[in-house]
Amino acid sequence: MLFKNISYLDEYGNIQSNGYVRVENRNITYVGKDAPVQQQEEVFDGYGKLLMPGFVNSHSHTPMTLMRGYGEGMVLSKWLNECIFPFEARLLQEDIYHATLLGIAEMMRFGIVSTTDMYYFIPKMTSAFISAGMKASLSHTIVGTFGGDFTRCPACIDSKKAFLNYNGSGDDLIRIDIGIHAEYTTDEKAVWGAVNLAKDLKTGIHLHLSETKEEVEGCKSRRKGLTPVQYFNRLGVFDVPVVAAHGVWLEGEDYDILANHQVTIASCPKSNLKLASGVLDYGKLRKAGIRVAIGTDSVASNNNLNMLEEIKFFSLLQKNRLGDPTEIKPMEVLDLAIGNGFAAQRRTDSGNIAVGKRADLIVVDMSGPHWQPEHQILNHLIYSSVGSDVVLTMIDGQIVYNNGEYLTIDMEQVLFEVKASKSRILDELRK
Amino acid sequence: MLFKNISYLDEYGNIQSNGYVRVENRNITYVGKDAPVQQQEEVFDGYGKLLMPGFVNSHSHTPMTLMRGYGEGMVLSKWLNECIFPFEARLLQEDIYHATLLGIAEMMRFGIVSTTDMYYFIPKMTSAFISAGMKASLSHTIVGTFGGDFTRCPACIDSKKAFLNYNGSGDDLIRIDIGIHAEYTTDEKAVWGAVNLAKDLKTGIHLHLSETKEEVEGCKSRRKGLTPVQYFNRLGVFDVPVVAAHGVWLEGEDYDILANHQVTIASCPKSNLKLASGVLDYGKLRKAGIRVAIGTDSVASNNNLNMLEEIKFFSLLQKNRLGDPTEIKPMEVLDLAIGNGFAAQRRTDSGNIAVGKRADLIVVDMSGPHWQPEHQILNHLIYSSVGSDVVLTMIDGQIVYNNGEYLTIDMEQVLFEVKASKSRILDELRK
Repeated sequence: MLFKNISYLDEYGNIQSNGYVRVENRNITYVGKDAPVQQQEEVFDGYGKLLMPGFVNSHSHTPMTLMRGYGEGMVLSKWLNECIFPFEARLLQEDIYHATLLGIAEMMRFGIVSTTDMYYFIPKMTSAFISAGMKASLSHTIVGTFGGDFTRCPACIDSKKAFLNYNGSGDDLIRIDIGIHAEYTTDEKAVWGAVNLAKDLKTGIHLHLSETKEEVEGCKSRRKGLTPVQYFNRLGVFDVPVVAAHGVWLEGEDYDILANHQVTIASCPKSNLKLASGVLDYGKLRKAGIRVAIGTDSVASNNNLNMLEEIKFFSLLQKNRLGDPTEIKPMEVLDLAIGNGFAAQRRTDSGNIAVGKRADLIVVDMSGPHWQPEHQILNHLIYSSVGSDVVLTMIDGQIVYNNGEYLTIDMEQVLFEVKASKSRILDELRK
Repeated sequence: MLFKNISYLDEYGNIQSNGYVRVENRNITYVGKDAPVQQQEEVFDGYGKLLMPGFVNSHSHTPMTLMRGYGEGMVLSKWLNECIFPFEARLLQEDIYHATLLGIAEMMRFGIVSTTDMYYFIPKMTSAFISAGMKASLSHTIVGTFGGDFTRCPACIDSKKAFLNYNGSGDDLIRIDIGIHAEYTTDEKAVWGAVNLAKDLKTGIHLHLSETKEEVEGCKSRRKGLTPVQYFNRLGVFDVPVVAAHGVWLEGEDYDILANHQVTIASCPKSNLKLASGVLDYGKLRKAGIRVAIGTDSVASNNNLNMLEEIKFFSLLQKNRLGDPTEIKPMEVLDLAIGNGFAAQRRTDSGNIAVGKRADLIVVDMSGPHWQPEHQILNHLIYSSVGSDVVLTMIDGQIVYNNGEYLTIDMEQVLFEVKASKSRILDELRK
C-alpha cells in the first residue's frame, strides 16, 4: 500500500508535507518526499491528511466496556462494592470475548494500535485481540491474599499458564505480563509469587501504584511506614520491567527508585480527575528521569478510549500544574503516548515512520473547520483535534479501521452480544 | 419538520425514548411519546440519536479563528505582544467576515446555537452571524485609557453605533452588549463610559474578570487594594446584566457582590488550563449562588470551539477540585452550558424542548462504539462522547449543519478567504 501526497510525522518529530510512505506486509518499506518506483499496490491519496504512528494505550481494562457508565456518580468504595464487583462476579467467558472486541473497536477508532491491559479471562481476551489484529500486552490480575506457597496461588497459576500459552501468539501481537492488582489488594506472598514468576518467565509486571492519597497513607500504616513504591521495591518488583499505572501520589525516595529501575508510569489523567484522585506531578517525574506514558484506564472511570482527548487533558493539565503555558510541546506528549508506550511494552520495532519499522499507523483528517487555518499541524493535532479525526488505523500493515468501517470486527454481532451480556447480568443482579 | 423515533432530553432533564418533536417555522410545536397528527413535512428518523437543546458559548472571540495555533507555546505577554497584537493590528474589515464565518461553522459543527462574543468590527461580524443564521450577543471591545468625556471615546462611540444599528437585527438573532476588555486594560473613565452607555441603552456588559492571579494582584496595587470585582462594583458595572469571563481568582466579598448582582461567570476551563491561569473554584461560586455558564474563549487559547469537550473538562476538573467523584451530575453541567447561557443572554424563549420554545436544537449520534452499551444516556453524553457526535444543528427552526454539510455557509469560499487573509497578514508581518 502506498500513502501518497500525504503529510507525515517523520522519525525526527517534523511534519513533512506531500510525502510518500509505502507499506509492504507488516513493515514500512519506503518513506520520502519523492514518489517511489511504481508497483502494483493499493494507493491512498492523503490530501489534507496526516499520517503518523498509532498510539499506545499504556493502561487499560478492555473488557470493562460492559460497565461503561454503570453506577455512575457514586462514591468509589460504594461504586466498587455495590456495582462493579457484583457485576464482574457474574461475568462469563462468553461475555468477555465480545466486550473485549467492543473495546478494541473503540481503541482502533481512536487510533490506538497497542494496549497494556490488566484483567481476567486471558484466553478469551487473547482470542479477541488476535481475531481483531490488535497488539496487546495482557496480564492476568493477581489479587487477594493467600498464606501458602506462591506456586499454589490460583492467580499465579493462571498467570503462568497465560504466559506459556499465549506470549508471542498471533505472530507476536500478544505479549503476556504478570499483573499485580495493587499493594492494598494483595499480601506479600502474592507479590513475591508474582515477582518470581516474572523473573522465571523473563517478562514484565503491570500494576496499580500510588493512585490515591488514601492508598499511600494506608500502605504506610500497613507496611511500617513504607510507601507503595518502597514496599514493592523491597519485594523486588522493580527488578523486572514494570508498567505502573497512575503514580499520582509519589514522595521522597519514590522518585529515585522509579528512575533507577526504569519503571514506566502510565498516567491516566481523565480517570484521575473523574475519581478525584489528583493530577500527576509530571514536572517532578520528568526531572527525576522517570519514563511516563499515557493510558485511558477503563471506560468505567473515563468513560472512553479516546487517546487524542487523553493527550489533550494531559497537556493542558500539566501546563496549568507547571504554571507555564509554554510547557509540554506537542512532540513531548506524543513521545509519551507513542514512543514511551512502545518502549514500556518492549516493542522496539514500532512507533516511528521509518523504513524497516512495523506499519502501526494512523491517518488523521485535517479538513474539519477546527483545523483551519493551518499554522502548525502538531499544535492543531494536540489542541484542536477531536478523537474522531482519526479516519484510518493500520496495525502490522493491516488496515483494521477505515472511515467508519471495522475491517476485522463484526460490529453488528459485537453490539448484539454486548447488549445481551449486559442485560443478562443486570437481570441476575436484580434477582 | 418532525423528529420521530428519537430519544430526547425533556424540559425536566429526563431522557424520553422513541419520541416525537415537531418544529414549525422557528418554534417547537409538538413534543410527545405519541405520533402527532400527520401533516406534510420533512421527517427525520432519530433511531439511535438524541435530540437536545443546543449549547450556548458564553465567552468567545469568534474572528480569532485566524490566529488558531499562531505563536503557540510562548509566554503570555510575549505571545500577545509579539504575535497576537501585531497580527490583529493588520486585520481588515474583509478579513473579519470570513474569519467569523469559519468560527461560526465550527460552533455549529459542535452544537453551539448562540454565542456571547467580544471583539471588534461588529458590522462585519453581524453580517456573518445573520448570513449564517446563528444567534450571538456581540460586543465591541472598549479597551485603552482616555482622559476626557466618555462620549468622545471612540470605542464607546462604536459600541453605541453597534447597538443602535444592530441590536435585535436578523430577526433578533443579534443582540448587542457593551464590551469592557478588563480592569487592567481600561481606565476609570472608560469603564464609567461603558456603564453609562449600557444603562442608557438598557443592555448588558461583557468583560474579562479575575482571570489570573497577576491581574488581581495588579489591580489591588493599582486600585487602592480593591479586587477587580470590588473595583468594577464601585463603578456601577454590575448594575446592569453582566457576563464576566473566567472568575478564576475571586476572594472575600467578591462572591457576595457577584451573587447579589446576578452576574454570570462564564467559565472557560480549557483556556484557563492552557494559559496556566488556574481552575475555577466552582464549589464556592455555587455555594454563593452565583450563576455559572461555560465558554470556549478564543481558539487562540483553546484551540477549538468544541462544547462537549469543554463540558467534559469542566465536569472532570470540578470532580477533582471538589474532591468528590459523585459531584457534577450531567444535568448540572448541561444547565450551565445551555440554560444559564441563554439566561445570561436574556433569551428566555430557548434552551428547552417544550412547545412554544424556539427550535434551537442539536442531534447527537449515539451509534459509535464509545456509546456502547447503553446504561445512562446523559452520562455517556458528558463522559463518553466526542464533539463530532453532533450530527445536526438547528437554529430558530433552520437546519444550519447536517452531517458534514454547512447549509448556510459556503465553506469552500470561507476556507479560501481565510487562508488568503492569514497569508497576507503573515507576509506583512515578515516585512
